[in-house]
Amino acid sequence: MTDTTDMRERAPRPRGPADEHEAAEILASARLRVDPELRAAVDSLPGSLRRIALYHFGWEHADGTPAAGNAGKAIRPALVLTAVRALGGDPLSAIRAATAVELTHNFTLLHDDVMDRDTTRRHRPTAWTVFGDTDAILAGDALQALAQRLLAEDPHPGAPAAAARLAACVVELCAGQRTDCDLEGRAPQEVSLEECLGMVEARTGALLGCACAIGAVYAGAGAETAAALDGFGRQAGLAFQLIDDVIGIWGDPTRTGKPARTDLAVRKKSLPVVAALASGTPEGAALAGLYGRGRPTAVADPELVAQAVERAGGRDWAQSHAADRMSRALGDLARAVPDPERAGGLLALAEYVTRRPY
Amino acid sequence: MTDTTDMRERAPRPRGPADEHEAAEILASARLRVDPELRAAVDSLPGSLRRIALYHFGWEHADGTPAAGNAGKAIRPALVLTAVRALGGDPLSAIRAATAVELTHNFTLLHDDVMDRDTTRRHRPTAWTVFGDTDAILAGDALQALAQRLLAEDPHPGAPAAAARLAACVVELCAGQRTDCDLEGRAPQEVSLEECLGMVEARTGALLGCACAIGAVYAGAGAETAAALDGFGRQAGLAFQLIDDVIGIWGDPTRTGKPARTDLAVRKKSLPVVAALASGTPEGAALAGLYGRGRPTAVADPELVAQAVERAGGRDWAQSHAADRMSRALGDLARAVPDPERAGGLLALAEYVTRRPY
Repeated sequence: MTDTTDMRERAPRPRGPADEHEAAEILASARLRVDPELRAAVDSLPGSLRRIALYHFGWEHADGTPAAGNAGKAIRPALVLTAVRALGGDPLSAIRAATAVELTHNFTLLHDDVMDRDTTRRHRPTAWTVFGDTDAILAGDALQALAQRLLAEDPHPGAPAAAARLAACVVELCAGQRTDCDLEGRAPQEVSLEECLGMVEARTGALLGCACAIGAVYAGAGAETAAALDGFGRQAGLAFQLIDDVIGIWGDPTRTGKPARTDLAVRKKSLPVVAALASGTPEGAALAGLYGRGRPTAVADPELVAQAVERAGGRDWAQSHAADRMSRALGDLARAVPDPERAGGLLALAEYVTRRPY
Repeated sequence: MTDTTDMRERAPRPRGPADEHEAAEILASARLRVDPELRAAVDSLPGSLRRIALYHFGWEHADGTPAAGNAGKAIRPALVLTAVRALGGDPLSAIRAATAVELTHNFTLLHDDVMDRDTTRRHRPTAWTVFGDTDAILAGDALQALAQRLLAEDPHPGAPAAAARLAACVVELCAGQRTDCDLEGRAPQEVSLEECLGMVEARTGALLGCACAIGAVYAGAGAETAAALDGFGRQAGLAFQLIDDVIGIWGDPTRTGKPARTDLAVRKKSLPVVAALASGTPEGAALAGLYGRGRPTAVADPELVAQAVERAGGRDWAQSHAADRMSRALGDLARAVPDPERAGGLLALAEYVTRRPY
């Protein structure tokens, strides 16, 4: 997706596998630093709510016995801490802020799973399937509150601005989820590419951007730098989703670990499909016939649909658009952190999320 | 419930109807001061979420046409502003904080209505019945975020402490709602009075106490004063709920405007019923036979159940316990605001919520 030759020209170090290693180290370190604060926040919950949160984060099984923990990749807290470091601040000063971002992310996961009726999250049954809708909603509400409480009690001078950014981001995440549900109910031809991109930016890009911007705030950077890092996270988030959508259709199941074509089988309005439908080509019109509303899911062969999307230009569009978004992300990063050596950690994280088995 | 003779001895002014008038004025003034800030916060939401919130607050009909607005009695914002004034602060400095409390209250109403499947709120269909569960959940999430954003952007030195208190209160509200749902699923005999009182304190008392404590924080008062005012609001909230439960069983429908005995018809575990069941009296045992789990709702005549609750001492217990809580509330108030003249506004509000048509 991203051109590694370009990368080499931008930064003095060799890129590629080394970056992946660097990103993995950054993520593991963020997990280690944030987990104690995250666990303390969850442990502060009253018993009934604590149990749901402990299950959601993978620290307990459904029956309340201890589990190894699988709280995700910690990309968002890693972005906070790495942004602080890139701008010359002390990452240790931002651990509460990084934890608040992670709590907020998990609040939205708990609620999104209820609304979307998703039954699996991080290879385990979702909280609502185990505890019911009410418990999952309440645990999510409590995690949002815990996130804001951490920031409100943080004496760091950047905490109020970070809290305001995080709250504004939650509103954007909610609006994105609202649009997503709205688009789900419409026929694919009635969904514009612009709406779809706006929804993805709100659902995926906003919190990645917010994490980076909060890092800037904690490093004491100015508004322009925070805005540029927000843009970096947003554009990288869009690139990530575009690539994720491509993998969802054309990925090799033996490499991705996901069954092939499931997105097409459930007629998900992923970006390559919407782009193909909006292409104005005869192939796009043919695709509309296969993918229209009201047709039983099983009618069209997902293999044929994938070919139709590709013929209508959906795959090429998604790949070039992902490259374009990644290039915008790198431009924003260069504005916020002109020294490539200092920008290396954020670059590695962006490449990590966008370079996936495929 | 409260003894007005006692009141006259505490404060130099005549009490009774005058207080009611004073409370009504305080509430109307709080509504007037908070509404513009509340409306601005709601108007800042993206379109799809804004529509749900505008409906919930009564500013729009379900079809999006303007409505007169019916955002409730504004008791919580009035407590914030009146507490600030009672402690010698400037209520105008706390309008954002009062609005944040009101937004938080309405976030919990939106979510509670989804979980409890309640279909009516402020004499109108609840948001989830009009827009669906997803929209009501998302609008609630967004209101919690807006509340925290208002405080995070408030330059008042008390804002961070207020934000932390409000977030901690949300966790308590969620735990209270969780306990309430848990108690709903149990047989009345399996519910202890202590659990029930704890649940009511969390669901009703906590936010009233938090509103008063935030007022103290904004007036620059110390931790002890804030704690005393928190206690005042909590105890007044418990007194309110006890009286509300008594009215729900023995209130005169022509005076309360509510149909009689509905709480009993749906086998609600209201405090007088739980007290009667826990009384250890033969009448309590007889009541358990009428009110047990698994019996069809229509079997027991609510009139007979009301008599059984009364014979088992549930009514007397609730009335004397309400008086006891009100007296604790007044003790807390006197500690926080020793000058009765200054305490008059808060006292009037506490009497307003506990002295109801009956």
